[in-house]
Amino acid sequence: MENASRKWRFQVDSEPNKSINLSIYAVLDMIRQSLDKNDQRIVVPLGYGDPSIFPCYHTDVAAEDAIADAVRSAKFNSYSPSLGLPEARRAVAVHLSRDLPYSLSADDVYLTAGCVQGIQTVLTALSFCGPGANVLLPRPGFPIYEMRADFAHIETRHFNLLPERNWEVDLDAVEALADERTVALVIINPGNPCGSVYSREHLQKIAETASKLGIMVISDEVYANLTFGCNPFVPMGAFSSIAPVVTLGSISKKWVVPGWRFGWIVLNDPHGILHQSRIVERIKSYITFTMVPATFIQAAIPQILETTKDDFFSRINNMLREAVDTCYEGVQEIPCISCPKKPEGSMFMIVKLDLSLLEGIEDDCEFCVQLAKEESVIILPGAAVGLKNWLRISFAIDIEALKEGIRRLKAFCQRHVRGTQA
Amino acid sequence: MENASRKWRFQVDSEPNKSINLSIYAVLDMIRQSLDKNDQRIVVPLGYGDPSIFPCYHTDVAAEDAIADAVRSAKFNSYSPSLGLPEARRAVAVHLSRDLPYSLSADDVYLTAGCVQGIQTVLTALSFCGPGANVLLPRPGFPIYEMRADFAHIETRHFNLLPERNWEVDLDAVEALADERTVALVIINPGNPCGSVYSREHLQKIAETASKLGIMVISDEVYANLTFGCNPFVPMGAFSSIAPVVTLGSISKKWVVPGWRFGWIVLNDPHGILHQSRIVERIKSYITFTMVPATFIQAAIPQILETTKDDFFSRINNMLREAVDTCYEGVQEIPCISCPKKPEGSMFMIVKLDLSLLEGIEDDCEFCVQLAKEESVIILPGAAVGLKNWLRISFAIDIEALKEGIRRLKAFCQRHVRGTQA
Repeated sequence: MENASRKWRFQVDSEPNKSINLSIYAVLDMIRQSLDKNDQRIVVPLGYGDPSIFPCYHTDVAAEDAIADAVRSAKFNSYSPSLGLPEARRAVAVHLSRDLPYSLSADDVYLTAGCVQGIQTVLTALSFCGPGANVLLPRPGFPIYEMRADFAHIETRHFNLLPERNWEVDLDAVEALADERTVALVIINPGNPCGSVYSREHLQKIAETASKLGIMVISDEVYANLTFGCNPFVPMGAFSSIAPVVTLGSISKKWVVPGWRFGWIVLNDPHGILHQSRIVERIKSYITFTMVPATFIQAAIPQILETTKDDFFSRINNMLREAVDTCYEGVQEIPCISCPKKPEGSMFMIVKLDLSLLEGIEDDCEFCVQLAKEESVIILPGAAVGLKNWLRISFAIDIEALKEGIRRLKAFCQRHVRGTQA
Repeated sequence: MENASRKWRFQVDSEPNKSINLSIYAVLDMIRQSLDKNDQRIVVPLGYGDPSIFPCYHTDVAAEDAIADAVRSAKFNSYSPSLGLPEARRAVAVHLSRDLPYSLSADDVYLTAGCVQGIQTVLTALSFCGPGANVLLPRPGFPIYEMRADFAHIETRHFNLLPERNWEVDLDAVEALADERTVALVIINPGNPCGSVYSREHLQKIAETASKLGIMVISDEVYANLTFGCNPFVPMGAFSSIAPVVTLGSISKKWVVPGWRFGWIVLNDPHGILHQSRIVERIKSYITFTMVPATFIQAAIPQILETTKDDFFSRINNMLREAVDTCYEGVQEIPCISCPKKPEGSMFMIVKLDLSLLEGIEDDCEFCVQLAKEESVIILPGAAVGLKNWLRISFAIDIEALKEGIRRLKAFCQRHVRGTQA
């Protein structure tokens, strides 16, 4: 056709940020394609942080009822107020204030359709800090930050997390990376992919470093309260008198409902610095009528946040504790894999591959592809989260499935250890 | 505090696009603040295109049941596939294909949490066509386009719609405005705020102009099928063999559920031009795991789209027809207001104010503020949609309330006509 070959003016003229082509979802899709359809065993999915398909991780039925009741009431078919229902914002403020030394107000809370929209919103707001603004991201980390920064036309730089120090932020590296155009530092706590839970002392040092550099802290707390080790979860907002903190969160993980797309951005800004910088103005106008979740979901939130019993949360955390014990012990018995630190939170463990011990496997991606093919086990290559030749294992699955997955992983490694080939 | 005065690096350094400060929602909020609390009469809301609060506009109960059933099934708490559930994409494709001369496939459909996220997504994708890319927008129009273009760092230019020609696009103006950096032309059909429904002939001319200029057409069809005049609704996609068309839509208006946040982007791209330009790649990666609606809402969509009876839609259109007749006849009797064309679709009528006939009212904003104060009637000033000294009236409300609103509008105008002051 003539149309197909003529010059149209809307040509994308730049390459996407590499991380876009290496998103977790794309990588897992690719690995899934290597599964052997003739393998009769069930596939063990250790790739995602989404255990909601397992009956034992089924959310509180009362939460589902709250949504169904809200939609059936016919009171919430309308647009919500532009920044969300005040009662939903208030419920989130009350919920989060339990862990804080001060009380958030409804006005500090902006609702988003999931945490990723919170990321998108904050990075877009920061893109108005002038051309060349940059944001510091952890490595390993969550690649959606890179992807969303790219869409917001904002630069990213990476600091390392330190395996030998419980995956703490390398604050010297942060100081070395930052310059006049640096506007924010991102942390993920509890950690994805490392399962770390930062101590009060480390969080305070992060705040002090941010203050020294004149930057804000964006604290991704989507795994808040999912902890089962020594360190309790402490929100970064507790240190917001030192440097302003933008907290991102959602009900996705704590209530095991990532498909519900309900999250928030919280401004921990006791000195009004975020307001003065006019970042807040941009966050508000970006969210207006775009990012807010469905009105009936918002309407159900007060009931969900206020009435879910502690039993539900402790049951989830107990399952995660048992899972991490199983996973950690299992991995200790596998020679080519090592875990620098047993996870204390989130749903992930990150382990190092010793490729020198393996025959015919070049890197983490090949390891995962072969593992899927031979053992019907899905694991994420560390490359997808910024650490080549590591593996991210999600242990948040049914415990029997997890045990089976670890057994198969072990069998796979034993089979591929140098010198054991037939 | 020391912190409050020191220099932080994250300062927003640019002014927002003016339209952001003049969003429909902000303007209506401002007008609502002028309401006289001592007025015992009900407030007549002619400002928004959201009749869902009126019992007569209550959505189909089966649609609410579909959502409630999906959430209670516990099968849809998980993340959806990154571009949405295939069955929901397929259902949208089938639904829209009814009005098209060809069949869309599920792969042509991308799900978004409402039409505004569709706008955001497409404009963000276009921002990768290099610096200085511009998009042509209608005046009057829907200011969220300007706001979202600003967030995507993309330039906007405006062409007029022609009141004397049923608010058709001024195609000469489009040609004059376009340059080498123009990438797209936006139309809204059925029209917001004009209530126009474009003929096949006009749509074809739009496509031919786009083809000549080498640009795509973004066709906002959020009011699709809400028509009650001579012209039937014809989707712009019917002319996509002439120029590629990106169609935006949602269930918000047709099912009267704007709070449910379920919409779509459809690529009408028979020659693969959008794919070749790599715009599609950007749309896909932007949507991935961010813009998709809650999984259980997606899951309910096939049932909603397939089982809602035609009776429901004809009842809505009949109510809108009666409403527009009432509104148009009522307005004819008001000397300082004129309507160039009776609406044939959407939920809006736009009317011109003759300020020379009014005493002590300077402009459309003052008119609306005074009207709210004296008569408890909310109308949107035309300035908010790009036409100063016009008014946008939403007639999509309960018919008795509409009649009351028109009576009060008439009384207000009669009271303020020159020479009638006490």
